[in-house]
Amino acid sequence: MKKLGNYVTGRWITGDGEGQALYNAINGETIGYASTRGLDFNAILDYARKTGNPALRKLTFHERGLMLKALALHLRNHLDKFYAISYKTGATKADSWVDIEGGIGNLFSYASLRRKFPNEPYCVDGDAIPLGKGGTFMGQHILVPKEGVAVHINAFNFPVWGMLEKIAVNLLAGVPAVVKPATITSYLTEAVVQEIIASGILPEGSLQLLCGSAGDLLDHVTAQDVITFTGSASTGLQLKSHPRILAENVPFTMEADSLNCIVLGDDVTPNMPEWDIFIKEVRREMTTKAGQKCTAIRRIFVPQNKMEDVWLALGKALSQTTIGNPENDKVRMGSLAGQSQREEVLAQVQKLLASSQIVYGSLDSVQVVDADAKKGAFMSPLLLKNENPFESEAVHSVEAFGPVSTIMPYNSTDEAVALAKKGKGSLVCSIVTADNKIARDYVLGAATYHGRILVLNNECAKESTGHGSPLPLLVHGGPGRAGGGEEMGGTRGVKHYMQRVALQGSPTAITAITNVYQTGAQTREDEKHPFRKYFEELQIGDTLITHKRTVTEADIVNFANVSWDHFYAHTDHTSLQGTIFEKPVAHGYFILSAAAGLFVDAKKGPVLLNYGLEECRFVKPVYAGATIGVQLTCKEKIEQEKKDENDIPKGIVKWLVQVSDETGDPVAVATILTMVAKKSQ
Amino acid sequence: MKKLGNYVTGRWITGDGEGQALYNAINGETIGYASTRGLDFNAILDYARKTGNPALRKLTFHERGLMLKALALHLRNHLDKFYAISYKTGATKADSWVDIEGGIGNLFSYASLRRKFPNEPYCVDGDAIPLGKGGTFMGQHILVPKEGVAVHINAFNFPVWGMLEKIAVNLLAGVPAVVKPATITSYLTEAVVQEIIASGILPEGSLQLLCGSAGDLLDHVTAQDVITFTGSASTGLQLKSHPRILAENVPFTMEADSLNCIVLGDDVTPNMPEWDIFIKEVRREMTTKAGQKCTAIRRIFVPQNKMEDVWLALGKALSQTTIGNPENDKVRMGSLAGQSQREEVLAQVQKLLASSQIVYGSLDSVQVVDADAKKGAFMSPLLLKNENPFESEAVHSVEAFGPVSTIMPYNSTDEAVALAKKGKGSLVCSIVTADNKIARDYVLGAATYHGRILVLNNECAKESTGHGSPLPLLVHGGPGRAGGGEEMGGTRGVKHYMQRVALQGSPTAITAITNVYQTGAQTREDEKHPFRKYFEELQIGDTLITHKRTVTEADIVNFANVSWDHFYAHTDHTSLQGTIFEKPVAHGYFILSAAAGLFVDAKKGPVLLNYGLEECRFVKPVYAGATIGVQLTCKEKIEQEKKDENDIPKGIVKWLVQVSDETGDPVAVATILTMVAKKSQ
Repeated sequence: MKKLGNYVTGRWITGDGEGQALYNAINGETIGYASTRGLDFNAILDYARKTGNPALRKLTFHERGLMLKALALHLRNHLDKFYAISYKTGATKADSWVDIEGGIGNLFSYASLRRKFPNEPYCVDGDAIPLGKGGTFMGQHILVPKEGVAVHINAFNFPVWGMLEKIAVNLLAGVPAVVKPATITSYLTEAVVQEIIASGILPEGSLQLLCGSAGDLLDHVTAQDVITFTGSASTGLQLKSHPRILAENVPFTMEADSLNCIVLGDDVTPNMPEWDIFIKEVRREMTTKAGQKCTAIRRIFVPQNKMEDVWLALGKALSQTTIGNPENDKVRMGSLAGQSQREEVLAQVQKLLASSQIVYGSLDSVQVVDADAKKGAFMSPLLLKNENPFESEAVHSVEAFGPVSTIMPYNSTDEAVALAKKGKGSLVCSIVTADNKIARDYVLGAATYHGRILVLNNECAKESTGHGSPLPLLVHGGPGRAGGGEEMGGTRGVKHYMQRVALQGSPTAITAITNVYQTGAQTREDEKHPFRKYFEELQIGDTLITHKRTVTEADIVNFANVSWDHFYAHTDHTSLQGTIFEKPVAHGYFILSAAAGLFVDAKKGPVLLNYGLEECRFVKPVYAGATIGVQLTCKEKIEQEKKDENDIPKGIVKWLVQVSDETGDPVAVATILTMVAKKSQ
Repeated sequence: MKKLGNYVTGRWITGDGEGQALYNAINGETIGYASTRGLDFNAILDYARKTGNPALRKLTFHERGLMLKALALHLRNHLDKFYAISYKTGATKADSWVDIEGGIGNLFSYASLRRKFPNEPYCVDGDAIPLGKGGTFMGQHILVPKEGVAVHINAFNFPVWGMLEKIAVNLLAGVPAVVKPATITSYLTEAVVQEIIASGILPEGSLQLLCGSAGDLLDHVTAQDVITFTGSASTGLQLKSHPRILAENVPFTMEADSLNCIVLGDDVTPNMPEWDIFIKEVRREMTTKAGQKCTAIRRIFVPQNKMEDVWLALGKALSQTTIGNPENDKVRMGSLAGQSQREEVLAQVQKLLASSQIVYGSLDSVQVVDADAKKGAFMSPLLLKNENPFESEAVHSVEAFGPVSTIMPYNSTDEAVALAKKGKGSLVCSIVTADNKIARDYVLGAATYHGRILVLNNECAKESTGHGSPLPLLVHGGPGRAGGGEEMGGTRGVKHYMQRVALQGSPTAITAITNVYQTGAQTREDEKHPFRKYFEELQIGDTLITHKRTVTEADIVNFANVSWDHFYAHTDHTSLQGTIFEKPVAHGYFILSAAAGLFVDAKKGPVLLNYGLEECRFVKPVYAGATIGVQLTCKEKIEQEKKDENDIPKGIVKWLVQVSDETGDPVAVATILTMVAKKSQ
């Protein structure tokens, strides 16, 4: 029988001893064995720090992002192999799609996020902060990749997505990973890592894999490392209490299963589209992955007077769910991940039954197709009901990690909020309502106890990604029982793997360190107009002080004529009483346009086009007779990738535009964006 | 003798028993006693949750900010009282200024930060996220105040600032606090809390004070609470290991003393201004608060060949520091906080002396003015040297929390970085250099191990706030040994006391919940032009679809004439080869200006002025012959406070401007800001 490989310190190694047996969830056959015995866990962390980390941290965000994209494209070529293995975990094709292609999708998403970062290995964070009235001292936060390794301890239910959603983030940040999937389904993770390593796309040391126990790995972590855990609250507590993690102040992010809920809005009646949306959503969440999702709906809150209608409709929907061998196309729900899981779920159900009753499903029988219900880890969906949810603690705390959910009544939106909170913190909740007032009241009431809230109505149901799906651009995690952690959330997640540093110093020094021009820093003006410089030639701080222009009444009138903007403040001197204007004021857009007239170099050159404008403020009125001049300074350069082979090599240049009048006062300030060609074709 | 009050559950209560004796640090006399025995700590937390939290969370950020401002103004009226008590802690006038007025300054800073938040009790976080191609499903993160209480366990060295820097943040977030200052100097904290409570400015339950032991307080915390700790690494470890904190996933922020360092750049010679800046900075950091600062410089790294020059210059500077009774105007350094502190510091110095030697100061004698060196907790500044910093662990790990620092040699910037990191994570480090290349190399090398880095040179030294000063707009905290936490950092700190929730739903539902218009949400167009509506009348989603305008060659020429912008792409049809333009393109600023010409209502009305422009992008070229129209939508309303009694009541309105052409394609999109009058005067 096959023993799974561990990919550590640059090679595939099998652990000592026989190892833990792994079983096909559908037929109970032995698939292989997993062992990490004999591995040197300290050496594994050290290898990541000394090999993977230096290789990744010197890459820019753009290079790391393109690496993720290449990896995603590569893995997409091996889908058949992954699906075939995934069926053995009990997952259906739809379940496997979420796990495999959802995971690959995360790689694509984080690849795209490179555009939110500069083409540098590190980045600034937030705005520049003036720290002195004279403008010679300032602050700016920066983010640099941590020098350690991300240690991911993952759950059994998503062997592919669980790894990819996490490594996408740490790799974009510039930090390597050691992944320890839950042993029971680690054979699928191993198959994916085999393809990743074989591709050679990641620098060596970026990814290591442990199939089996984590051994004494945590005895060797430091504050430059980051640990993430996905799984049960009890295992999470055990891990986060590790003396080394506490003593070294090692960042620890936990995402624990929680008692997520859904609420049917009081406005929804059986004749409304939201009724069907609700039934469909609950059915899907109970049966996808046979309910083995940390985000699955465990608690269903419906208005008291609709209890029976809902459970009957749900029972009908559940009865139409074909259960069995995932390789049969008709099957909509597969098995649990193994016999031990089924036993565990049934044990939890027994606890729930002390205060709840079964309204759909059977504890001891299930009809399956193309499979042996005894050999595979199959079970019937179970819909329970609990008529007294304020009296029962179990229904808000006991999690049966399978196709099990409990329906409960409520009498007001406030009660629904109070019931949702009895879960003591959840990853997600949903409300189905067509009434945005109800949605608002529920969301603002329940928000403190949830990491994500889905508001479902007929307007969005078709495009909705569903209650159960964490998305790469949204945070995944929740307070309290849900672990108190946050993952992903777009660029937020990347910051978990970076150290934030508050830099203080002179604008010139901060400009030199950040590669972003800071107001007040030294500038350089030379003979060559900045618009005549190619992208590579431009330097941060290159500046142009323009000729000047006296604004006349004719200018204001002509601008009103060409723009058709006849706003009284520009055109009617009899209406200015009570305003801040003493005379007809020049249009703000005239100031911007005249500034361009002053700083633009008209002849064809490297500047390709005007791309946009940011943070423009008009700070002093300009009247006829005032004389304006502009200082144009190269503020930031952003590399652009070629769209195709014929695309001109180019980048975006951000310019600081400072318009002042004859007294030296600023009248307008803006950041403009131009596209600038590169010299090298 | 006086027993300190505890302000809990709405009244001042003294604890049972005799309590812990508190001593005047200058003369050793007993000041009073502190006890929390007999208090019901669970009731204290419960009171904050049920009284202070609901009162604060319903206030808007603006209301909370104005409350902080009022509190700061109130405390400023009682400075004399606070200074008189502060001297008893051993602090000089300058030390007390940092503690008292620095703390009040933090209140002012966080009061001003209200402008970064909406005039609502909660806020959006980050950008809107489209989640479907059809535009009917989207995501938006929001932040809501947690429902619990901030528990602040503070250090003895800054009894005022330590409290105010923290409560400024949780109060702006909408969360109440229980403050437990270190007992030894809690009499000063108590005096400030007396004034806070007497002022009646904070809603009842917003602030409670414990002078003495925290009892079983931590046995009752939940995930809706936030615990912060400032103090020693050992106490911090003990607190964060509390089973309740671990089991309930209670957020815990730790800021621990660390072995902060300063580096003298290799470029700096004694004839440069940076030399004197360096000596002055080290002297100040060693003697301010008698070195009892978590940010104080413990390690001084200088180029090998400048070791002796530096220690002689430092010794000379230290010898000019007058030590003694802070009430004497000549005194520049006071005492430690008490005899026990002095004993502790001297014990740590003994550990350092195993590998270092004293080059300035005395272990057993100190010259003081206006005080008895034996009765007060005075000690001499001690400058040690260690010639082999790569061989000694103690010098990078043993902290003598007093006026003690060690000078060490380095041979390259890389070595300086490596030595800085041997502290295993620090709150702050500094480098003094006139060479921005050295600054850059050092900062990027050392950043991973520091929460803050100060780059000091002659350009910024005059305005520099110094190595040791955490600032409200910068993060305070550091990785590893420094505790792994972050405090303050402007709006970042506020988020520690709020729950982030990823909202998903239709743009219309998300608009209703966030009060910010989301692209694709339902709009309302009525007879009244939006520019004719007062601030109160405008509703999010109010929209105007304008008449249209065919852009002509004459428009482009006229715009070139009025703007003087003769960029070839607008004016020269012979130069367009190889560009993206097929014909001379209309100026981007013409499109913006013409859009205003279409949407502006010219007659005097509630709209007072054009304030600025954000996020403008030109997305499709407009040529002569194209016909453009605009949709103007009320996106967000921001209350403005009156500057004075004569100021017109008004607010800022953000408008979404969507310009499209006759094919329906968007050609430009922007957010513009106008100032709009209120109807109510």
